[in-house]
Amino acid sequence: MSEYIEHDKSGVSVGLVEKQFFTFAEPPNPMKLDSGAVLGPVTIAYETYGRLNEDASNAVLVAHALTGDSHAAGCYSKTDPKPGWWDIMVGPGKGIDTNKYFVICSNVLGGCMGSTGPSSVNPTTKKPYGASFPVITIGDMVRAQKALTDHLGVKRLLAVVGGSMGGMQVMEWCVRYPEMVTSAIPLATTTRHSALAIAFNEVARQAIMTDPNWSSGDYYGGNKPAMGLAVARMIGHITYLSDEAMRQKFGRRLQDKAAVSFDFGADFQVESYLRHQGAKFVERFDANTFLYITKAADYFDLEAQHGNGSAVEAFSKARARFLVVSFTSDWLYPTYQSRAMVTAMKKNALDVSFCEIEADCGHDAFLIPNPRLSALIKGFLESVSTGQQHP
Amino acid sequence: MSEYIEHDKSGVSVGLVEKQFFTFAEPPNPMKLDSGAVLGPVTIAYETYGRLNEDASNAVLVAHALTGDSHAAGCYSKTDPKPGWWDIMVGPGKGIDTNKYFVICSNVLGGCMGSTGPSSVNPTTKKPYGASFPVITIGDMVRAQKALTDHLGVKRLLAVVGGSMGGMQVMEWCVRYPEMVTSAIPLATTTRHSALAIAFNEVARQAIMTDPNWSSGDYYGGNKPAMGLAVARMIGHITYLSDEAMRQKFGRRLQDKAAVSFDFGADFQVESYLRHQGAKFVERFDANTFLYITKAADYFDLEAQHGNGSAVEAFSKARARFLVVSFTSDWLYPTYQSRAMVTAMKKNALDVSFCEIEADCGHDAFLIPNPRLSALIKGFLESVSTGQQHP
Repeated sequence: MSEYIEHDKSGVSVGLVEKQFFTFAEPPNPMKLDSGAVLGPVTIAYETYGRLNEDASNAVLVAHALTGDSHAAGCYSKTDPKPGWWDIMVGPGKGIDTNKYFVICSNVLGGCMGSTGPSSVNPTTKKPYGASFPVITIGDMVRAQKALTDHLGVKRLLAVVGGSMGGMQVMEWCVRYPEMVTSAIPLATTTRHSALAIAFNEVARQAIMTDPNWSSGDYYGGNKPAMGLAVARMIGHITYLSDEAMRQKFGRRLQDKAAVSFDFGADFQVESYLRHQGAKFVERFDANTFLYITKAADYFDLEAQHGNGSAVEAFSKARARFLVVSFTSDWLYPTYQSRAMVTAMKKNALDVSFCEIEADCGHDAFLIPNPRLSALIKGFLESVSTGQQHP
Repeated sequence: MSEYIEHDKSGVSVGLVEKQFFTFAEPPNPMKLDSGAVLGPVTIAYETYGRLNEDASNAVLVAHALTGDSHAAGCYSKTDPKPGWWDIMVGPGKGIDTNKYFVICSNVLGGCMGSTGPSSVNPTTKKPYGASFPVITIGDMVRAQKALTDHLGVKRLLAVVGGSMGGMQVMEWCVRYPEMVTSAIPLATTTRHSALAIAFNEVARQAIMTDPNWSSGDYYGGNKPAMGLAVARMIGHITYLSDEAMRQKFGRRLQDKAAVSFDFGADFQVESYLRHQGAKFVERFDANTFLYITKAADYFDLEAQHGNGSAVEAFSKARARFLVVSFTSDWLYPTYQSRAMVTAMKKNALDVSFCEIEADCGHDAFLIPNPRLSALIKGFLESVSTGQQHP
């Protein structure tokens, strides 16, 4: 979610990787979406790390969060300064050990990093879809991932792993394709957004949609709604941190000044940080994708969509072993929401381990090096791959 | 702060009230501001409720929060549907009993509800100040209030009361004019903004300043930066509520629909609510004032400005009796910040009562009818006015 990660310098990387593409749902057989709309063709950008073993039993699917992409680990070239977004976790000997597992990560449907989304060209009109792109759901994202795993010859996933919106995809996998999912690791996530989470997303969307350059979504080739997207990103960044994390990281420290400036420049470091994050994000991300993906996350409601309003009923469809992880300072998806998931899983006699990790750094904790989290995931995957029961 | 108040229908109102104006600092003797800039003339809009007694010993100053005004209680006419913003607390027999006390409330310096602010006409240029208005501080606001109390013949305040940014003014009064303040009631406030609070304000300011209609602050007579201001207000509204309050008030309930719409309209009630709050706010509030007042709140730092970085040293100047109140679900100015104030007061052997009120409704709790809060304030004022020592 945040790219503000202090990378684990000691880790061994998977090395050079390449983004690949898979296209399916070619007309006249387009993909039918949860909304009832159809979309085709659909291209999914993905990367893989490690090797699929002979009986195709070692595949681990990593699902990314809101602003992530298929580039979970490794680098694109020897001079590439920036490894994938979860390089701290995915690599030889790491939490998700690429010496043992075949790791797949794809850009979500609706994304802007190679998969079909609102910035893609609509083959019918030969223009970018813009706001004519159909509204998609977490379920649609997962069905596109299923098409990809089929294509890769993976019939069963040893694990599906993801944090935040990635965790929603994890749970969707478990109830939509239970026969395919051996184990699942939802991190810092929820079965449905609270009003608070919807509220933040809505304000971020309003910032984009009220930017005159948004032009009802039809801005490609012209000025981008950069101001609105930057504000949206700043709002997001606040929610990914915590009161304590911000106190430690910034406090009331001033930016390059001995005293406040008595103007509307960035006096405080936290102001500079947010402005910088906003400006950087605008360079790499599409505003329409931000709208579509936040809406998909807001719409996600495992209880309503798979359990007639009951989490217990929804998880009755699941067969996976679970490792559920929350973080103490995550106020976007607080621990009580993970506990509710765990309770519903346990009522179904599912094999579930739950860990609330003490962390000051807020929602983004799963993206930040944490030996405890790495060890937890590593141990869990080992026990799953050797068929051990949880003690 | 929020106008979303369920008014105490049972309360007796102070009845019809009138906004009044006091002008001072006429050139060539303008007001010297904390920034070093000068400003004059300065007009302060104010209202009073109740009567000043003969020895002028029953005056209570009420300081408003970010988007409040001088209209704390009563109505402007018999058909006025909306009483003042703290009508639940200020009136005959209420927490601040206007049968006993002479209550003064003024619009802050920099405001847009009658006091001199960025939307006021600069007498030199005959145009609204806009962004040429000097950056003001909580200290400047308080010095303007002091000019007003002098004008009203009030030499000593029985109490200074206020929540949120009003609470900052309360504390500023206590250390700037200790000989004038008999007692002080800071509610849901802090001696200095955390990085989190600055961050929310900065994003709100960015939303305004990146609205093309803001025009570097020079928008008067043209299109207002309504979109930016609406987004700023929506951000504020989220911070005034709480996770639990939003769950109770909205949950995931849909707005006038049986199912989600698969478009970018307001599907959820919380989305409609925020859009409505944003749109309503734009009608009544000036975007530049929002910028100036949030900046003043961010700059406020009692420790730095009055205690060389030490809260204990800052409060060593105070002489007032204190009633400090925080609310359990206030995550903008959490209880730990009130506790830190109380600790610093106690180290100075000040007479301080502290109460953390159990409330689900977040930061805005002080604006919502709460018998416990009313009783606390009423009892405290009575003991102060009769000279009783705190038990």
